[in-house]
Amino acid sequence: MYRSHTCGELRKSHSNTLVTLTGWVQKTRDKGFVVWVDLRDRYGITQLVFDEERTSNDVLEKARSLGREFVIQAKGKVIERASKNPNLPTGDIEVLVNELTILNTSKTPPFTIENETDGGEDLRMKYRYLDIRRNQVKNNLIFRSKVTMEVRKYLSEQGFIEVETPYLIKSTPEGARDFVVPSRMNEGQFYALPQSPQTFKQLLMVGGMDKYFQIVKCFRDEDLRADRQPEFTQIDCEMAFVEQEDILNTFEGLTKHLLTEINGIEIDAFPRMTFDEAMRRFGNDKPDIRFGMELGELNEVAQHKDFNVFNSAEFVGGIAIPDAAIYTRKEIDRLIDWVKRPQVGAKGMVYVKCNEDGTFKSSVDKFYNQDDLANWAEVVGAKAGDLICVLSGQIHETRAQLSALRMEMAERLGLRKPNEFAPLWITDFPLLELDEETGRYHAMHHPFTSPKPGQLDLLDTDPGKVKANAYDLVLNGNEIGGGSIRIHDKEVQATMFHHLGFTPEEAQAQFGFLMDAFQYGAPPHGGIAFGLDRLVAILGGQETIRDFIAFPKNNNGRDVMIDAPSPIDREQLDELGLKLQK
Amino acid sequence: MYRSHTCGELRKSHSNTLVTLTGWVQKTRDKGFVVWVDLRDRYGITQLVFDEERTSNDVLEKARSLGREFVIQAKGKVIERASKNPNLPTGDIEVLVNELTILNTSKTPPFTIENETDGGEDLRMKYRYLDIRRNQVKNNLIFRSKVTMEVRKYLSEQGFIEVETPYLIKSTPEGARDFVVPSRMNEGQFYALPQSPQTFKQLLMVGGMDKYFQIVKCFRDEDLRADRQPEFTQIDCEMAFVEQEDILNTFEGLTKHLLTEINGIEIDAFPRMTFDEAMRRFGNDKPDIRFGMELGELNEVAQHKDFNVFNSAEFVGGIAIPDAAIYTRKEIDRLIDWVKRPQVGAKGMVYVKCNEDGTFKSSVDKFYNQDDLANWAEVVGAKAGDLICVLSGQIHETRAQLSALRMEMAERLGLRKPNEFAPLWITDFPLLELDEETGRYHAMHHPFTSPKPGQLDLLDTDPGKVKANAYDLVLNGNEIGGGSIRIHDKEVQATMFHHLGFTPEEAQAQFGFLMDAFQYGAPPHGGIAFGLDRLVAILGGQETIRDFIAFPKNNNGRDVMIDAPSPIDREQLDELGLKLQK
Repeated sequence: MYRSHTCGELRKSHSNTLVTLTGWVQKTRDKGFVVWVDLRDRYGITQLVFDEERTSNDVLEKARSLGREFVIQAKGKVIERASKNPNLPTGDIEVLVNELTILNTSKTPPFTIENETDGGEDLRMKYRYLDIRRNQVKNNLIFRSKVTMEVRKYLSEQGFIEVETPYLIKSTPEGARDFVVPSRMNEGQFYALPQSPQTFKQLLMVGGMDKYFQIVKCFRDEDLRADRQPEFTQIDCEMAFVEQEDILNTFEGLTKHLLTEINGIEIDAFPRMTFDEAMRRFGNDKPDIRFGMELGELNEVAQHKDFNVFNSAEFVGGIAIPDAAIYTRKEIDRLIDWVKRPQVGAKGMVYVKCNEDGTFKSSVDKFYNQDDLANWAEVVGAKAGDLICVLSGQIHETRAQLSALRMEMAERLGLRKPNEFAPLWITDFPLLELDEETGRYHAMHHPFTSPKPGQLDLLDTDPGKVKANAYDLVLNGNEIGGGSIRIHDKEVQATMFHHLGFTPEEAQAQFGFLMDAFQYGAPPHGGIAFGLDRLVAILGGQETIRDFIAFPKNNNGRDVMIDAPSPIDREQLDELGLKLQK
Repeated sequence: MYRSHTCGELRKSHSNTLVTLTGWVQKTRDKGFVVWVDLRDRYGITQLVFDEERTSNDVLEKARSLGREFVIQAKGKVIERASKNPNLPTGDIEVLVNELTILNTSKTPPFTIENETDGGEDLRMKYRYLDIRRNQVKNNLIFRSKVTMEVRKYLSEQGFIEVETPYLIKSTPEGARDFVVPSRMNEGQFYALPQSPQTFKQLLMVGGMDKYFQIVKCFRDEDLRADRQPEFTQIDCEMAFVEQEDILNTFEGLTKHLLTEINGIEIDAFPRMTFDEAMRRFGNDKPDIRFGMELGELNEVAQHKDFNVFNSAEFVGGIAIPDAAIYTRKEIDRLIDWVKRPQVGAKGMVYVKCNEDGTFKSSVDKFYNQDDLANWAEVVGAKAGDLICVLSGQIHETRAQLSALRMEMAERLGLRKPNEFAPLWITDFPLLELDEETGRYHAMHHPFTSPKPGQLDLLDTDPGKVKANAYDLVLNGNEIGGGSIRIHDKEVQATMFHHLGFTPEEAQAQFGFLMDAFQYGAPPHGGIAFGLDRLVAILGGQETIRDFIAFPKNNNGRDVMIDAPSPIDREQLDELGLKLQK
């Protein structure tokens, strides 16, 4: 046994106990006659003390030789501290050391292992094993482990069975790009890594498994945007003999369980909103409802005047920014520059100051009188002191721009409080989405999602109008989960593939095993998948998933710590029957 | 809600309750005036009844139309059965159906969904989703889920943190062959899928995570032997500030917890045996100790007579097969044929019948008298009525042959009882193993395993003699876990790489990140990994891991259900910058 206690557990009640501690040297303070060492392990920090009166000379000398991050073992007696440290759980005591062993030395670390480190992102990624010693990263990983334990506990109690599905599966051209794995035993052929266990969980339902879940890695070879990882973790779930209502209730239960057990928060029934309503009120299918600033549609009150910009627009909409009427011209100009950034994409912005005296001052006073502007204020719910921002253009784009502005202003105004949680179900998603480039429809969720009952015929006449039995769970403006009731009828599934532009042969080649399975008694079924990385980050009150992943990759898909990916030997390529093109 | 109850829960106390059940039609019995349907779901079977007196005509007709594996919903009243079925938990009741909905039809399945199926292995693999409906496979998957929950529960309570390590890592030429994943964003470079998270868990120890575990998929591109899978699951564990004793105690605790919770068996302290002792007594480093038949070394009592086969052999050894002296000449000849099979490889076999009257009859009576044979009997522990089988040759091969014979005879004699559990620690493994072909030593466990204290110098003089701080956990003749105390000193690690034939440059290129990490305060650490697939199979009293994997691959690494691996598009290859050689 290297230690009798951890560095986080000693209290006043341990006084006079002989203990053995191990850990890393956080820091050393040498006052000449006395040396203090802060010893750190996963569980906390304990102060070691060595002094000329009570410590033998060689031990004191050894203590003086300790560098930062040395690994040591210290034996000694717990004593009460003269000056206590109320910020440390172990702050009432220190350990008077009589035996000191250096278990390993350390070079000076490339950045300080402190809560406030001097290390930049790149350096901390390269030496991730040192970053993990810091409280932030360490606590995030422990937090993640706790969340997954609670997920498993809750789902098991609900009768779900965790089933492992394979990682070496079949490549499909649908959806995002697959990572592929060349097969040596079947030369010229490839496995693919799963983008999700979607078809396997449906086959498990056909197999009668009834309630399935799995916490599982998934893979997508996409160009990485900020905070996306090529490998990510899903809480993947599926149930048989259920309707949408059963799924929403079950996973609302899971989310409540997490909020209670992890965050100590009780939340009543989650609100629900259709996709159409969410787009209308928030311009976004994952609205953050912790704050207002809802979108108002101004077509009726702003069009048919002499302002041609609005008259020619498909959509005119605005939001009221609370207490922003005091913005200077300069501040407003900066806001206009912000909405015109390519990432937002607005052409310009009209504003209305709602003065405290009930009058209005706008950038379009030439075209609109005070009554007009009062109508605008009513539609967007602006009160005296607010600033109304109005954008116009195509309806989808304009709503998205207003949503971006709404989120930005909420951020600036501190309305996105990390410890406040506002979950929300979004339902009735469109089944299909038009790809503007190809003019083809593709599945908004995935090709196995069932249309709303009775809407199958609409597929022929007005495919964009068909709604799906699909739903997302949104938390604080982030989609944390999404799912659908699946098609379980082989004819309907064939119809769907047809509308997605598959020939029957293509459908058979790609999904034949699923279509086959549907011939042998597929039950009604549906499911949901949560993005664990994001869920954990949000529950932890943060937005960056990278800090909740032990060994993340950078935006080029590289692990800079182990230097992967990397070239492989010619012999390895030969065994796989492959050649590099270059 | 599709159902009010499952097919496994209704009892006599539910009589007169109105219920809605869903499930699959297991079978229909039509007696003309009455039709019975066995309805099956994950939870059990419930009998539905339709009769001319109490059921409407159209419902009765619909019941008559049901085929095997149709998916139905039935509403009706629970009634007590006239003739109860004591073999079925729901056997006291049946449901008198008044409303019947066919949720899905089914083609006649390619094999019967019964405990005793008529489907062969290949057919059941192709239609695995149907095989999963059978009790055996379904119960195995539920059993596996229960085992992993108990593993997580136990380790969490012991303070272990589950940390996910990456799947897209770096290829290393050491050990088995890697599966590789071409990178599109880093053309010409490859990730590898992990053979185990070995280096990452060591880095987590350097990172202060202290107690880590993970239930994780691992990958090896090896030519598949029977019952090997290219992807398999490990319970992967690592601890810091521990000695071998701490690890053995912790994971003996885990194994006891599983045996208690899963099998209802309490086992005292697990026996321990060194590698050398296991080889001497059982000819095997994973001995099944549920039965005796230990190996006896006969060199002293069998050599230096006139029998040249033995005189010229490095090793003469035997085992006593209980009560086998009655074997006929024919039966013994068949046994001799068995040991001469290429899989076993013996050149021949000498036998001694220990007659009930205390005399001996052997195949080498020409060379050995009754006193000689009595000595043999004493060495191998044979009693009257036993048959002594003696093999000779090189010591390693002969021991292995005797071990194979011992296991075979135990199997034939029914001594390998599936519900008896005999765990055992094997310790003090050799650090290095000589590769006879190349004449090079390689690491028996892996290159990060630490030698026994004080044996480092032996590496230069007699490397084969160096023992490692390595251990295996053996259960019923199977290695279910193995691990070691790791090297945590960068100099020792460099020495190890040197003795394994790495140049410093090669070591740096492959494991530089680990050697770097060891410069920044690596704590003493060690760990273990369990093969989950095999562990679950053995706890389940079975030997075939395939039945405990939802979607296994065949011996060619193919998933015959989804038909993977398969060719990919030319465009996909182009994007990856790859060409097929053929």
